[in-house]
Amino acid sequence: MEAATSNKTVILKRYVTGVPSEDDIEVVTAEAPPLVVPAGSAAVVVKNLYLSCDPYMRIRMTRHEVPNFIPDFIPGEVLANNGVSKVLSSGHPDFKAGDLVWGMTGWEEYTTISNPESLFKINHPEIPLSYYTGVLGMPGLSAYVGFFEVSKPKKGEYVFVSAASGAVGQIVGQLAKIAGCYVVGSAGSDEKVNLLKTKFSFDDAFNYKKEPDLEAALKRCFPEGIDINFENVGGATLDAVLPNMRPRGRIVVCGMMSQYNLERPQGVRNLFYLVSKSLRMEGFLVFNYYGMYRRFEEEMAGYLRDGRVACVEDIADGLDSLPAALVGLFSGRNVGKQLVAVAALD
Amino acid sequence: MEAATSNKTVILKRYVTGVPSEDDIEVVTAEAPPLVVPAGSAAVVVKNLYLSCDPYMRIRMTRHEVPNFIPDFIPGEVLANNGVSKVLSSGHPDFKAGDLVWGMTGWEEYTTISNPESLFKINHPEIPLSYYTGVLGMPGLSAYVGFFEVSKPKKGEYVFVSAASGAVGQIVGQLAKIAGCYVVGSAGSDEKVNLLKTKFSFDDAFNYKKEPDLEAALKRCFPEGIDINFENVGGATLDAVLPNMRPRGRIVVCGMMSQYNLERPQGVRNLFYLVSKSLRMEGFLVFNYYGMYRRFEEEMAGYLRDGRVACVEDIADGLDSLPAALVGLFSGRNVGKQLVAVAALD
Repeated sequence: MEAATSNKTVILKRYVTGVPSEDDIEVVTAEAPPLVVPAGSAAVVVKNLYLSCDPYMRIRMTRHEVPNFIPDFIPGEVLANNGVSKVLSSGHPDFKAGDLVWGMTGWEEYTTISNPESLFKINHPEIPLSYYTGVLGMPGLSAYVGFFEVSKPKKGEYVFVSAASGAVGQIVGQLAKIAGCYVVGSAGSDEKVNLLKTKFSFDDAFNYKKEPDLEAALKRCFPEGIDINFENVGGATLDAVLPNMRPRGRIVVCGMMSQYNLERPQGVRNLFYLVSKSLRMEGFLVFNYYGMYRRFEEEMAGYLRDGRVACVEDIADGLDSLPAALVGLFSGRNVGKQLVAVAALD
Repeated sequence: MEAATSNKTVILKRYVTGVPSEDDIEVVTAEAPPLVVPAGSAAVVVKNLYLSCDPYMRIRMTRHEVPNFIPDFIPGEVLANNGVSKVLSSGHPDFKAGDLVWGMTGWEEYTTISNPESLFKINHPEIPLSYYTGVLGMPGLSAYVGFFEVSKPKKGEYVFVSAASGAVGQIVGQLAKIAGCYVVGSAGSDEKVNLLKTKFSFDDAFNYKKEPDLEAALKRCFPEGIDINFENVGGATLDAVLPNMRPRGRIVVCGMMSQYNLERPQGVRNLFYLVSKSLRMEGFLVFNYYGMYRRFEEEMAGYLRDGRVACVEDIADGLDSLPAALVGLFSGRNVGKQLVAVAALD
């Protein structure tokens, strides 16, 4: 039986304006919750092992007048995101102490989860558990459903992925290769570009920070044009993509990371190409596809086992590193999927 | 046998920058072409009865460095667009003198059409022939395929149509009612708004020129949000629509008329709603759906016969009125489908 008197927690200090800084976030030591679920409760108490840092969290750090697709964080409260956890105590029939799960948890050592139905039991503990924050978790499922379900790829099509070395992008590229597509990615450093070409089997890649003209860079990489754009950044990248699309192309919008720190989003000017090239641009929320998770988990576990999909993680150590790890996403400091190791599986 | 010594023609004088003016267009009397097709030719010679004025023509009046979806007009040459014509002479087995057709023709009295395969024979000459430039022609088919094939409406859905009294918008609204939807339109004058409500059976309508806040106007008209946006204008209208969309809504982009006169298109800022509301935004070109024309013609002829679809035309008289009629589209001078009557059917 685990015992704890304190619980290190990561809280939002204040709503964020512009680029988030470590000062917006605070690590506070609180009293530990009871590590045993009270009688009659259907909650579970978990010990968090790995916590995921994802760009979409930035959206929750600003106050929205109109309810957004996901609730805003509240200053003074513990931040939350997906993580890998061990169940310490369960009042829920589907879970028992010792189970390994992934799902929405608190940015802290110990979390009481009152809706454990939202958690997934980990079926492949032989794979590094941290992968359940990335390739086998929400980012991997985003790549999978965005690429296969939304873009509906055909063999031989030309695929462009922005933020391609990130948690989602690196998986999209490899799935595109599995689907028989030609895939080019963009990233923000030569190191990341190299990773795309050597580790993630992209056919080509470029460092967008070194390209004075993004539209021309895409034209150079796609002389025949782009069939599928997997959009992770939005803004100027999307504007450069539109004239390079092929007729009946598809733009899957997974995120618009370049816009999250802006008070007012950038305008995208080239939308008439939607008409002149008969394009489909479609956004999606991965939460709506959680029903596909088990099918995805088995398929992806197979790809990992066979070496057809590789992943690169950027693992920071300890809860104290969470503020810097989250903020670093927006300067591109991370190389690969950013997460934090909070505790070892004992 | 028709005889003619002269052919009044409407030519583009110069490439247009900004808002087109009548000075950009010139009416010139040229020599008449031979009104009999030479032996061995598969062309047809037609006498034009009605010529259509459509906003997309503006796109062809600017020079494009990169080929567009449709060729640019050439200064000094006769303008072209869809019209209703009578075949005077035919070298093509599918047509004979006396046939009534609609399709791409010249802005002139007599035109030699070298690819008559692009013409449609008119199967319902009992309906006013001018309707084949509108409700039974390209704009009607645009409304039909954009609404039914692209947006895929369900009974009870909320539909918004911009430029709703125009050639396409008026038909979309009535098809939406036939599909059991709730439909609201916007237009640029109280007269047009009145037409939407009384003649075209829109559930509600507003004059966008009187609304200081388009987003708020849409919120007022759609307290539950919009399922389907049939987009004809783009720019600020599209930006106001996006926050008002319901989850899994569809934006069918038929045109972006507000942008055609701009050197640089306006930026659309609210695109992140594509993600947060899982929206699909899709453009289309009606030419790609011409294979459906016969099915459409029969269905629409039935609606017209039964009084389920009405149409309002703005018919100018004579070739000399073509420059003003075309230019007037961009100031909203026309009420309903703009066309020009060139010659009577004799």
